[in-house]
This record gives sequence, structure tokens and C-alpha cells, in this order.
Amino acid sequence: MLQNIPSPKTACLLIIGNEILSGRTQDANTRTLALALNQHGIRLLEVRIIPDIEDHIIKTVTTCRESFDFVFTSGGIGPTHDDITAACIAQAFNVSLVKHLPSFSALEKHFGTERFNPARQRMAYLPEGATPIANPVSVAPGFTIGNVHVMAGVPKIFTAMIEELIPTLPQGTALSMTGWHANGLREGDLAAGLTAIQEHFPQLDIGSYPYDHPKNGKGVALIVKGYHAEQVKNAAQALHDLIIAQGQTPQEGEP
Amino acid sequence: MLQNIPSPKTACLLIIGNEILSGRTQDANTRTLALALNQHGIRLLEVRIIPDIEDHIIKTVTTCRESFDFVFTSGGIGPTHDDITAACIAQAFNVSLVKHLPSFSALEKHFGTERFNPARQRMAYLPEGATPIANPVSVAPGFTIGNVHVMAGVPKIFTAMIEELIPTLPQGTALSMTGWHANGLREGDLAAGLTAIQEHFPQLDIGSYPYDHPKNGKGVALIVKGYHAEQVKNAAQALHDLIIAQGQTPQEGEP
Repeated sequence: MLQNIPSPKTACLLIIGNEILSGRTQDANTRTLALALNQHGIRLLEVRIIPDIEDHIIKTVTTCRESFDFVFTSGGIGPTHDDITAACIAQAFNVSLVKHLPSFSALEKHFGTERFNPARQRMAYLPEGATPIANPVSVAPGFTIGNVHVMAGVPKIFTAMIEELIPTLPQGTALSMTGWHANGLREGDLAAGLTAIQEHFPQLDIGSYPYDHPKNGKGVALIVKGYHAEQVKNAAQALHDLIIAQGQTPQEGEP
Repeated sequence: MLQNIPSPKTACLLIIGNEILSGRTQDANTRTLALALNQHGIRLLEVRIIPDIEDHIIKTVTTCRESFDFVFTSGGIGPTHDDITAACIAQAFNVSLVKHLPSFSALEKHFGTERFNPARQRMAYLPEGATPIANPVSVAPGFTIGNVHVMAGVPKIFTAMIEELIPTLPQGTALSMTGWHANGLREGDLAAGLTAIQEHFPQLDIGSYPYDHPKNGKGVALIVKGYHAEQVKNAAQALHDLIIAQGQTPQEGEP
């Protein structure tokens, strides 16, 4: 009998920053968060990359905190004029920014009184009622208010904050994800068989991703994921057998 | 006197695919589109990464095609069961999927009659009234309907479709973007100066991005962009002078 596993809680990531939208910088935080949430049993259901524009941030936060169980944000909490995330979140929650004394003291100690100028002091102001998220890399905290978790955009700091934050969130069933590479096959050759397997495992998510590998040439990655580990294993076996039936050898790891 | 340049048209990219949200795959298409749109004078104002879920796709397309001048999508137009983008776009526009005869013939010729099975034939069905976007890599077309431009997710094909599509769109003023790396400085040292420069150039977007380079260590990238090339040049000079005033030498290119 099929084990009954409740639907995972849902999450949305808001990447706040003109530098991704201008093409100057490649986002790295989506993957970091996705993998951490998979392990923790929360489903990353949407990512939005939005500009450093006050109205745009406030409107998006307001919509997303109603639509998802968890909202994570990255970017815009540094000391410069373009760091407006904390002020926007405060507005979205209709509260003021207030000096968070422990963070203020920690930052003052870190920078020394002389270097702790007004720009750096801004980083100790959090929306009223927010709880800080520790920053073991560069001291300036992220914060949680309601179901919104606000983190830095610099990947090293984002990763450190994720490691602080995720274990404090309610845990679900970890996502199981596995699959095979079918070197030498094409999606069109596998489509009918994949449809049959997907219909046999309606609670799983079976995906098919063509690739063109520099060394091994063209093929298709067949990936199965879901929250029932036993079913995922059985579906992976079915994918394995499908590749064999098409006359190729399933490959693990790199194509 | 300041040249009067109209505000650029706005664009949203929808990346449709569970493989990005699961962390299995790193998105590469945002940067490709962003750089092409910068050149063409269209502003990429938002990116949404959404799952292969019918309701989620239809709702997002419906919202975004009303909120932005252009909507671009990537992913979900192949031959397998998880390729549901074309059907969802048809629903969002309240039209049927119909066989597009020239695409059907081209695909039949490409695959040969025997390999042109029902799964592959699906790729020749477009929403009624859509115009195909040529696919010089693997024949199966993208398409345009209204202000929505639908493309493949595989980066090589996405890039080729972008190259076909962008020159057909109304052209604006290209975005000018430049800047300097300030090795050895910190955002907090530069914040007051940056605020003054931003206030002097209110029509430009001045951004500050800390880095920690493996070879050259910590510093800040100071980036200016906007649609007034002359102003961008003047602001870049001001950023240059700010770095000098803080006792460091501005660096071009890599930090």
C-alpha cells in the first residue's frame, strides 16, 4: 500500500538585484537554496528575479508572502544607496525600521568605532519585530519577519545564512531525485515509453532533458523525483529498462 | 541640455522547468536574453522561474502579458509528456492548438517518415494564430502569439531563436553599461560618495557589488548603466575619481 506523505510546504525565492537582470552577473543562489530545501522537504515552487525598485519589491513581497508558505529573498541588504530591501520589507509589513541593538553592537565591534560610519550603521536597522539571521562571514545580519526570510546576495554569505536558517524551519520529507543518462537516444524515441511510466507513477515527477555533451555527444537525461523514496526507486528502474529496450546502456553520473 | 530618451519597453522572461527549481540545472538563458535585450533597447524587468504545472503556467502567462510589453518564455516545447508550454499558452489565449503545416512538413523531412512519430508530430502544433520562430539547430519551431514569444529551453537552441527573434522586435536605445573595480575598498567606505554620484545622475542606475576574487582579494565593482551614453560616461568618470579619492587605483575588466 502506498505510504501517505503530506504535500510539501511551498517556497518562493525573490532575487533582488539589477545585476542579474542586466546580465552582468550569473545567479548562483537559486541552486544553493533549491538543494537545501530538497533535503529539508520544502518545495521551491517559484523564483522571481526583480529589480532594485521600491514599488516592484513591495508589491512582489506582498503577493508572494500570501501565495507561498515561505518566501526567501537574496540581495539588497548592504550599506550602499542601492540596498533598499530592508526598507521595502518594512513597508510591505507596515512597520518601521528600528535599530537592532545586539546587531549594532556586533557591527561596531567588528568595524571599530571609526570605520562604523552611518552607511554601515544602516545594516543594523531591521523591520520592527524581525529576528536576525546570523552572518558568520561578514557580521551584518539577515532577518526573518513573518514567513519572509531576508538574506544577502553575495553567494558565500547567502550560503552561510541558508545553513543557519534552514535547520530552524519545520522539516518535511526529503525529496528523492535520481535518474539515468541515455547516450545516443533522442527525446522523440523515448516519449511514448516515458508517458507510460509517468502514468504508472502519477505522484512522481518524471522529466526528460536533452543534452549535447562535449565528449559523449547527444543524449537525454531521464530524471525522476518525488517524496516517496520507494516509488522513486521503482520508477528509476522502469527508466533504466526503457533505455535498454531502446538498445542503449543507461549511464550514471555525467553523460 | 539633457537628451530626451523615452523609457524603454519592458520585458519579462518566464523560465518554465522543474529542472531549474530542483537545483539539477543551472539557468543560462537569463543572461543570454538580458544581454541581447540591452543591445536592442528593451529592459528585462523581471524573470520568473516556474514549474511544469498547467495552472501555474497559464496564470503566470496571463498576468505577465498584461504587465510587460514583451514576455519571453524558455522551456517545455519538446516532444515528451512534460512539454506542456504550447498547450498552456493556447489556453491562456483561449485558442486551440492547430497543426502548422509548414512546420509539420519541415519536421517530417528532417526526421524521415518512419521516425516522425506522434510524439515528434506534437512539435508542429502551435496555438491558432501563432507565428513560428525558426529553429536553425533542431527544426522544431518556437512561436509568437500576441506579445508572448515562446522558445526552447536548451541553451544552444534558445540562443539561436533569440538571434532570429530579437531583430524583428521594435528597437529602442541600447543600454550603456560600464564601471570600475575598486580593489581593496569596501562598500561602507564608498557608500557616501556613491550616494552623492547617484543623486547627481538620477536617470542612471549606479550599483555597487562586493567581490572576493581568488587572486586579487576583496573589493567592490562599481557599475553604472542607463540609456544616456554621455551621462553614463560622465558618471563612470565620477566613479573613477571616487576610487582615487579613497586611495586606490580603479581597475578595468576582471578585478
